[in-house]
Amino acid sequence: MKKFSIQLIALFFISFIAISCNKTTENANDDVENEGSHPKLILTKQGVDNIRKNLGNVPIFDKTLADTKAEVDAEIELGILVPIPKDLSGGYTHERHKKNFIIIQKAGVLFQILNDEKYANYVKDMLFAYAKLYPTLPVHPQTRSYARGKIFWQCLNDSNWLVYSAQAYDCVYDWLSKEERETLEKDLFIPFAKFISEGNPQFFNRVHNHSTWGNVAVGMIALVMDNDELLDNALNGLKTDNLNTGMRDNDGGFIKVEGLRLGFFGNLDEPFSPDGYYNEGPYYQRYAMYPFLIFAEALHNVKPELKIFEYKDGVLLKGVDALLNLSDADGDFFPLNDGQKGMSYYTAALVSAVDIAYKFGGENPELLSIAKKQDRVVLDDTGLAIAIGIKEGLEKPFTKKSVNLSDGKKGDEGGVGILRSDNLELVYKYASHGSSHGHYDKLSFSLHEKGNEVLQDYGLARFVNIEQKGGGNYLKENQTWAKQTIAHNTITVNEESHFEGKFEIGTKHHSDLYFYDDKNPNIQILSAAEVNAYPGTEMLRTLALIKDEDFERPFTIDLFKIKSDSKKQYDLPYYYLGHIMKTNFEFETYDQLNPLGKKNGYQHLWKEASGKPATDNTVFSWKNKDLFYTLTTASNANDELILARIGANDPEYNLRKEPSFIIRRKNTQNTTFASVIESHGSYSSVSELALNAYSSITNLKIVLDTEAYTAVEIITKKNTTKIFIISNKDNSTDKNHIIKIGNKEYNWKGSYYYK
Amino acid sequence: MKKFSIQLIALFFISFIAISCNKTTENANDDVENEGSHPKLILTKQGVDNIRKNLGNVPIFDKTLADTKAEVDAEIELGILVPIPKDLSGGYTHERHKKNFIIIQKAGVLFQILNDEKYANYVKDMLFAYAKLYPTLPVHPQTRSYARGKIFWQCLNDSNWLVYSAQAYDCVYDWLSKEERETLEKDLFIPFAKFISEGNPQFFNRVHNHSTWGNVAVGMIALVMDNDELLDNALNGLKTDNLNTGMRDNDGGFIKVEGLRLGFFGNLDEPFSPDGYYNEGPYYQRYAMYPFLIFAEALHNVKPELKIFEYKDGVLLKGVDALLNLSDADGDFFPLNDGQKGMSYYTAALVSAVDIAYKFGGENPELLSIAKKQDRVVLDDTGLAIAIGIKEGLEKPFTKKSVNLSDGKKGDEGGVGILRSDNLELVYKYASHGSSHGHYDKLSFSLHEKGNEVLQDYGLARFVNIEQKGGGNYLKENQTWAKQTIAHNTITVNEESHFEGKFEIGTKHHSDLYFYDDKNPNIQILSAAEVNAYPGTEMLRTLALIKDEDFERPFTIDLFKIKSDSKKQYDLPYYYLGHIMKTNFEFETYDQLNPLGKKNGYQHLWKEASGKPATDNTVFSWKNKDLFYTLTTASNANDELILARIGANDPEYNLRKEPSFIIRRKNTQNTTFASVIESHGSYSSVSELALNAYSSITNLKIVLDTEAYTAVEIITKKNTTKIFIISNKDNSTDKNHIIKIGNKEYNWKGSYYYK
Repeated sequence: MKKFSIQLIALFFISFIAISCNKTTENANDDVENEGSHPKLILTKQGVDNIRKNLGNVPIFDKTLADTKAEVDAEIELGILVPIPKDLSGGYTHERHKKNFIIIQKAGVLFQILNDEKYANYVKDMLFAYAKLYPTLPVHPQTRSYARGKIFWQCLNDSNWLVYSAQAYDCVYDWLSKEERETLEKDLFIPFAKFISEGNPQFFNRVHNHSTWGNVAVGMIALVMDNDELLDNALNGLKTDNLNTGMRDNDGGFIKVEGLRLGFFGNLDEPFSPDGYYNEGPYYQRYAMYPFLIFAEALHNVKPELKIFEYKDGVLLKGVDALLNLSDADGDFFPLNDGQKGMSYYTAALVSAVDIAYKFGGENPELLSIAKKQDRVVLDDTGLAIAIGIKEGLEKPFTKKSVNLSDGKKGDEGGVGILRSDNLELVYKYASHGSSHGHYDKLSFSLHEKGNEVLQDYGLARFVNIEQKGGGNYLKENQTWAKQTIAHNTITVNEESHFEGKFEIGTKHHSDLYFYDDKNPNIQILSAAEVNAYPGTEMLRTLALIKDEDFERPFTIDLFKIKSDSKKQYDLPYYYLGHIMKTNFEFETYDQLNPLGKKNGYQHLWKEASGKPATDNTVFSWKNKDLFYTLTTASNANDELILARIGANDPEYNLRKEPSFIIRRKNTQNTTFASVIESHGSYSSVSELALNAYSSITNLKIVLDTEAYTAVEIITKKNTTKIFIISNKDNSTDKNHIIKIGNKEYNWKGSYYYK
Repeated sequence: MKKFSIQLIALFFISFIAISCNKTTENANDDVENEGSHPKLILTKQGVDNIRKNLGNVPIFDKTLADTKAEVDAEIELGILVPIPKDLSGGYTHERHKKNFIIIQKAGVLFQILNDEKYANYVKDMLFAYAKLYPTLPVHPQTRSYARGKIFWQCLNDSNWLVYSAQAYDCVYDWLSKEERETLEKDLFIPFAKFISEGNPQFFNRVHNHSTWGNVAVGMIALVMDNDELLDNALNGLKTDNLNTGMRDNDGGFIKVEGLRLGFFGNLDEPFSPDGYYNEGPYYQRYAMYPFLIFAEALHNVKPELKIFEYKDGVLLKGVDALLNLSDADGDFFPLNDGQKGMSYYTAALVSAVDIAYKFGGENPELLSIAKKQDRVVLDDTGLAIAIGIKEGLEKPFTKKSVNLSDGKKGDEGGVGILRSDNLELVYKYASHGSSHGHYDKLSFSLHEKGNEVLQDYGLARFVNIEQKGGGNYLKENQTWAKQTIAHNTITVNEESHFEGKFEIGTKHHSDLYFYDDKNPNIQILSAAEVNAYPGTEMLRTLALIKDEDFERPFTIDLFKIKSDSKKQYDLPYYYLGHIMKTNFEFETYDQLNPLGKKNGYQHLWKEASGKPATDNTVFSWKNKDLFYTLTTASNANDELILARIGANDPEYNLRKEPSFIIRRKNTQNTTFASVIESHGSYSSVSELALNAYSSITNLKIVLDTEAYTAVEIITKKNTTKIFIISNKDNSTDKNHIIKIGNKEYNWKGSYYYK
């Protein structure tokens, strides 16, 4: 179908609709077309009329419809397959049931748009097969989950099923007979909804992405069936749940936390900051976004009086914007916390998110350019609006700028900042813990250029849905490695993770913004503090992305200031990706490799080499794809410079064997790590030309470091001198500062100085 | 300029030419335009007329011209920079001199095409700067080369300079005064040509890609100056050279080999097989192709009586075809021998190769599709022909099929076969040693899919022109690792490399084709034997790429039969790239890593893990990018299964730390390794769906293994049985075979059976 030209597709639809509308209905049921109140949930009767009128004239919509029809037709050919539940994710029964709910939702839509009963019959047959099976099912035989489902191994996937099946049911509701509806509701939908709510309060009555799916599943089917009791549970949670404080789920997250609002509203209130940042990070926000938005669309259609899109100052639509900003140049989400790399705004959940945000968020033309890249739309009013916008050529580029997203219900629990300059993107995390998917990585960052990871965040230790790797679920190395502090580009003190690596401590705290300033287009800067990760130790990290004519491309300044109550060992790793080009220090490689430590993630690092600084500057350069990078850092004579590699104590090859450069400063009380990371030059394997392969820096020096100020001097190869100063104690934007360094006086207003 | 539309560019040229042609000449010299005999070398007077007539009407040519003009104009702005030679490749003086010769060649062409004296003056000023400098120069201060140049650290680069500068000189020859020409020839070109020939016979009088450049450099300038003595040296080598047999160059290659024809003809005769395969491999063929073809074009223009394109049955044009076939789906050359990965047919040398092959090889329309991808042409008759062909829409896809390229002057020294089926490409090397750039890897192979390496050949240990890495030259790990047998997907016996890793032995031998058959589109098969690598041990490896409906994608059968005079240890590595998914055997990982051995490349492998076969089949699967792969091999109970990683004893991080799966069979005299490698399924990080993630094989078994026959039985998950049999002693295509395995009789004609 994809090969057909748009014209052919259009012709096909016009002919098809003409034929469909002329044929006499063969519907044997008692409701006939255009009577009754459904569809009303996502598709609406008015919306379907609009869609039909525009068919053949909205290329991206027509193409999606043709693709969907081809997909569903192929599945209809296979017949109704509803196996007895047995497998974990990745296994046959899991994947088959997953496919079923995805396909019947689409079949319902096709029935409405194309008016062909073949699709209604398919939905009906499928739902009746489930209505027959469901009452016979015990809980799922796989015992891994804290909340086992019936169709799937966890209630989460059962909820997925219901969110989609509710939409399918809505599409055929009026077409089914009353008796048929009664059977489906009595044998399938009501017991299904009760099982994932009352039957599993530990799943349903939480603030968590799992619960969001549960709430929405119950809410969607409630709206279709017009069931107020279920809707109330969906929106506000169960009144009673008999859960004990302290219960944990499989990921170690708390199940019961006193004083939280529950249900859909609770899940909107708690994890979203006023800026639309979702505390688990973009990977899970992407996952949660579909139920949040699809239910919002349903509520908007059925209960417009709730004004759901205006809830909490429009947080749902802000969430879409935040999420798009949390992606790199290729649209891949930054892998904060338990994020799997490669997930991007090309995922289906973001297609609906973008379409819904466009329709209900004032038709922002920048969203059209994302939708155009996605190259498909949702087959409803929102997708139609997008398709019309694209057809009319209204799109504008979605320009990603530096952004600072607050975390926490009230926006006062730290945040995540993305500094952007030319092709560079620096992601600085100083957020709250991120619920059960959080990592112990306060003040960590990652650096990206043109969609490539330069200094990586490891992400999760999991191969989602790949059955061979631990059933597709979290691997134990997620806990022993990926969550640990040493796995991140931030400081580990005394080889202990932040908050002792304990969830119950970590989840109580968050880092704090010190200042963020993106006003000067050449200097994007974010500074944040963490005082709870190690009691008695205060950390202030300032990251700046600076564009300066004496450098080929924007460079990063990294100032990590530590103040402690006693002497400690500080390890600051940089997880560079690429091949080492040159170091200015000598290092010894070993004949035999040993792990760097015994616990807290250190047991997973091989110590490949170690050296001492050659001068008061340490220079470490590498090549990543076709670009060169150099880290220049002010060294203490006693620093140990370690070259390490992930992969020790990894008996099942669950980890990626990637490298790290670690600066270790032992037996030190207060100190500042001052570094610059440059992106420079290029290499082409085709022309074999290496351009600008060396750093532009001849020296980097901390010229002042007091309680009040830290100043770094950078001397370039052009023999120019740059000074970067931050005020460590006063972050006000209008405070005047005057200080003298050597013979020179510096006078400025605000929290930093650069020249 | 790239942003301008073709129309604008065309308009620009039409206007430009009009202006140029109307202006009065400001040429102060005594020859005027359109008089004299030059250009005649690459551009010709008639050719320039044709080009001028077509300008503005041949988009790809116009675009290249505009890009070239922009590039040269920017360099002219910088002025004439001719520094005193000092640096190795990657350093300033090296890169500046390299840029100079590239730019003056282009400036010469621009002068001819655009008729603007700015370009002639630039060429003249540059050449005179060299004429002033050259007589003052000692040999280059860097002492690394066996043949030091004057402008560059090696005569090779000096020769590059002359090949390009001769073209520049040809373009301004008639425009210069007689006195100017005399000065340039006396002070620069003649001494330059004599230095790289008579002054460096160890460089000039060899069969080697270096010498090709030397011969061509002298030949090109000889043709421009009409100097018969130099031309004879170029074509036939120096009459006397006083070189001793046994001398070596920096790469360990022999300098003097008795009885070889020398000069350009010698370099055409010896390294090219009748199929156009160049014995050093595609990476060096690509490098040599430019001088071979540009000089051929020059000889064709100036000495048409030589019929150079018909020489040795058209070997030069066959060479272009062979080279294009030695590239993967992305156009990257397979990294045989000392090949740097990423070099592709997008390199400038291949632009001229494709253009010349098109013009002088019968205007094969498939070459137009390559030229279109290259998106630029040579600014001469050949490029014009391409541009006109593309403009007229004549191009056809360049379809790469399976091909078997013989090696050796007479085509009887083994070869390289590429088996292709759907998106899979299997490169099987059973060639001669490959001169000084050869590796000790008889019967090795690599596997590629959609341009990705699935089972890699390591390539060279070098970062070409990246000064930080050993001056951009060969690293010592090239010898200690990359050339060693264990670094390749072939068998190492008793931890010794083939031919004891000795060039003087290896270069005497080659493997032999046993049979090659691509007639059945579903079975591409190549079998070759090696009997000299380990005296007393005979090896026969058969690789087949088979398309069978019981498998999702084509799969590889790998049968490696060994017969020895005593018990040995056989190591067969598979350098898979990607992440291990699952093995069917248990392995122990180590708390401490040690190198796998002490020498012959083994010292560079960390032994990460080791295990024993769990059953008579060993199954090893991995994911590479978004596809799954499974190796299934028939195991002996005593096999050791080793997981290793490159990178031990690598004190400067010169090696890539990539993995290997090694099957070790100890204390065995005769044996056969029988394996199947499947490509199957897919994983999407966006949909998070894993499809067909498991092998289609339930069992693989050697059911017969005699002197005469080897048979393998494969049982699939569909419960079908496949039998693959080869005749080990008779490779005739019409021999009838009848054998009985178990109760079943097999009857077929030819060297193999598959069903």
